[in-house]
Amino acid sequence: MILMSINKNSRQPVFQQIFEQIKIIIEEDILSIGEKLPSTRKLAESLGVHRTTVYRAYEELWAAGYLESNIGGNSRVRQRPLIAKSNSDLEISTFDWSYRFSNAANLLYPYKELSTNANNVLLDFRPLSPDADLLPIDDYRKCMNTVLKNDGANLLNYGSSYGYKPLREQLAKQLQQHSISTSANEIVLTNGIQNGLELVLRSLCNTGDCIFSESPSYTKGLWLMKFLNLKVVEIPMTQNGVNIKALEQNLKKHKPKAIYTMPTFHNPMGISSSQEHREQLLALCEKYQIPLIEDGFEEEMKYFGKAVLPIKSMDRNKMVIYMGTFSKILFPGIRIGWIVAAEPLITKLGAMKQTTELSGISITQAAVHEFCKRGYYELHKKRIHRVYRKRMQQALQACREFLPLEFIHYSKPEGGYLMWFTLKNMAITESQFIQLLSNSGVAVSPGSQFFINKPKKVHFRFSIAHRKENEIRDGIIIIGNLLKKL
Amino acid sequence: MILMSINKNSRQPVFQQIFEQIKIIIEEDILSIGEKLPSTRKLAESLGVHRTTVYRAYEELWAAGYLESNIGGNSRVRQRPLIAKSNSDLEISTFDWSYRFSNAANLLYPYKELSTNANNVLLDFRPLSPDADLLPIDDYRKCMNTVLKNDGANLLNYGSSYGYKPLREQLAKQLQQHSISTSANEIVLTNGIQNGLELVLRSLCNTGDCIFSESPSYTKGLWLMKFLNLKVVEIPMTQNGVNIKALEQNLKKHKPKAIYTMPTFHNPMGISSSQEHREQLLALCEKYQIPLIEDGFEEEMKYFGKAVLPIKSMDRNKMVIYMGTFSKILFPGIRIGWIVAAEPLITKLGAMKQTTELSGISITQAAVHEFCKRGYYELHKKRIHRVYRKRMQQALQACREFLPLEFIHYSKPEGGYLMWFTLKNMAITESQFIQLLSNSGVAVSPGSQFFINKPKKVHFRFSIAHRKENEIRDGIIIIGNLLKKL
Repeated sequence: MILMSINKNSRQPVFQQIFEQIKIIIEEDILSIGEKLPSTRKLAESLGVHRTTVYRAYEELWAAGYLESNIGGNSRVRQRPLIAKSNSDLEISTFDWSYRFSNAANLLYPYKELSTNANNVLLDFRPLSPDADLLPIDDYRKCMNTVLKNDGANLLNYGSSYGYKPLREQLAKQLQQHSISTSANEIVLTNGIQNGLELVLRSLCNTGDCIFSESPSYTKGLWLMKFLNLKVVEIPMTQNGVNIKALEQNLKKHKPKAIYTMPTFHNPMGISSSQEHREQLLALCEKYQIPLIEDGFEEEMKYFGKAVLPIKSMDRNKMVIYMGTFSKILFPGIRIGWIVAAEPLITKLGAMKQTTELSGISITQAAVHEFCKRGYYELHKKRIHRVYRKRMQQALQACREFLPLEFIHYSKPEGGYLMWFTLKNMAITESQFIQLLSNSGVAVSPGSQFFINKPKKVHFRFSIAHRKENEIRDGIIIIGNLLKKL
Repeated sequence: MILMSINKNSRQPVFQQIFEQIKIIIEEDILSIGEKLPSTRKLAESLGVHRTTVYRAYEELWAAGYLESNIGGNSRVRQRPLIAKSNSDLEISTFDWSYRFSNAANLLYPYKELSTNANNVLLDFRPLSPDADLLPIDDYRKCMNTVLKNDGANLLNYGSSYGYKPLREQLAKQLQQHSISTSANEIVLTNGIQNGLELVLRSLCNTGDCIFSESPSYTKGLWLMKFLNLKVVEIPMTQNGVNIKALEQNLKKHKPKAIYTMPTFHNPMGISSSQEHREQLLALCEKYQIPLIEDGFEEEMKYFGKAVLPIKSMDRNKMVIYMGTFSKILFPGIRIGWIVAAEPLITKLGAMKQTTELSGISITQAAVHEFCKRGYYELHKKRIHRVYRKRMQQALQACREFLPLEFIHYSKPEGGYLMWFTLKNMAITESQFIQLLSNSGVAVSPGSQFFINKPKKVHFRFSIAHRKENEIRDGIIIIGNLLKKL
């Protein structure tokens, strides 16, 4: 018989008292492995408590690993050999992981979570994601409810490695707005553009292969290329897209597996290339027979200026790999991007998706499809265009009004969230400048992170995504004042 | 002035008639690029229709890429140079993708979507996923609603590359039930085990490196190893886990980067190794200093028999990499798995997640956390245990009753969904046997797909997951009758 004392006036529930006492009895080996505990009825009687109370204590003991599953009879003390505890007194000979990593793992950029409000930053112009205040959460929630109710069992099973077909069909239709003619067979859904770019690069490149990137370019795209151990040739950007002349010179010297470009609302520069520039770029790809990876991450975010079509719309030879995403217009957190490309490549990408993670999350893809089908997407786009258009106009106007143009140059985007600033005639380093701005309560993204070969000039990226018009104005006034003081 | 004719009695809506006619006018170059369309008011007046009807037609034309955005004035015909159409008459010189793929892409297993009901299959014993009838969809939907309402804006932004922290904390707590002591810092969430295994293998192995796998083993795990161009050494399985003797012999010959094992409800065999076997396996890893990848994909699905602890619970040196998933107990489609390992490795895996796809889907992870927090998970587990326990008991009983044991051997699982059959003394090939079964309306998974070096004997995998008790009985009777006839 086990000796236990229960205090019914204690603030600790009775079941927990039983739990704690039996736990000690087992840990002290008073009850050994394999020994039976009294039945719940017996123990309840002897303690004068309700049988369900004892039952609950046993359940907890089982959950904590002290008892064997009580199927078919009395509970027994469980064998717990050599259990490794975090706070164990046992001497632990730690396994040395440091020299166990692959070459690729050693090329990884260390991951740090972004602290958005460090250093008393009041005005944060770093985040490249939609303003939390403008997210259509309630409409999305309705769509999620509908698809869970109507087709939950099916959508919560493993899905197609190409992604939920109705959403691919919907995307093919939407892409017509940008004069891209395609169909669901030429589309694979990805976990955002980052995953899309990885799939594409892995499908085309071996370790050590050459790839062309614009300079500056998307930081995490560059990290990815480094992780895949690619040789990145940086082609300088102009204010009208990548330098075509420099591109051709490099095409004569190298044979890249692909060229990576962001013609529309470029990250980090915010600019878009002209239709003529796009034709030239595609013509070069055709001439040298090099696939073009066109990143249209903010394609839908045009606020003003003449319509310019994606390069993919002119792609008669199907050598352009077009990538898009819902991250910058709906939610980054749903991780839905897409790749549009020739079918032989899409087939490979589907197989790679299958091999690396089976499939994406169909239920999320179905909810977004419902969101588009109901017209919420077009409505939402119009609504946020109104807001961001004003913010971008405010930013451009404040730059004209408050910046000393002898010391700074800024890009003039027609959409998206980003502007790019370059200091002129200033004897200051990037980190000094970023620090001074930060002291004044303004955070921007240091420009050097968008290059592999560190730039000579000081640049920074400025995102209007998360700031109201007056904050944008204030931020630019602070930048202007700092420049005038220096 | 544009000449148009509108038929108000037509079944085609008026706005669509306007849309179609202007489309033709543009395509035929009657209205050229840059030319203005009449204002909506003017056209409405001249056609005698409401202005909103014309407005809608213009909107559609804009959406289809025929007009420039009409911000600030009249709509103009858009420049659509060289647009590539699917059904174009233009001669297209197709880009040849076939020799553009990387070595890895050429090692991919082609992806085909599983047709669950091909060939008049009545009784399908292939799927390894929970029965659609038993999914707790409504409870999950409630949880999703709660997290979207309470914290949607935050959860729909980019999340941590390690995964949603409260769910990692919850998992650490749940793992205590299996005597694994860990904390959120030692856990990274993955897109199911497939993604987890990829992250682990990429973090540890270079191209051409050696890895040990059990034989038979998880098909898509083997595909993944092939895709990563690893040299896989297959260690034969016994009815009590991997052959320890053969393992040690191979450890003397090779230096693998890791050993991949499924000690509990092994895929495809369904069996679990004993506690003693697990201790021996871990001791070998410690002796030869080789990390162990323990795949606990069905850890929580124990129905009867003595409790056996995961190898990770004995891992004092932190050299076991433990993987789990919600796919086999909640929903495969939410794609949530986890890795528990030493912090230096977890840090690498987080950075790799960041570099390859930024983050998982926090909102789904948060909904599952809510699901666990409310106790739905434990309730659901108990509920489905009752169902699957009966199914497994029925399967085992039907095997005893209806199979001619001189011709077939079957495994005796204590949980999970899988059984493994091996033919004895039969002159028949695998494909012949599978075909004959299929002719009788029974589908099983051919055993050869679970091996790299094709086996000499005929095996097949049998999943009880999707079939009711009477169907399981019927299926086994059909198998028995077929064997007796042969």
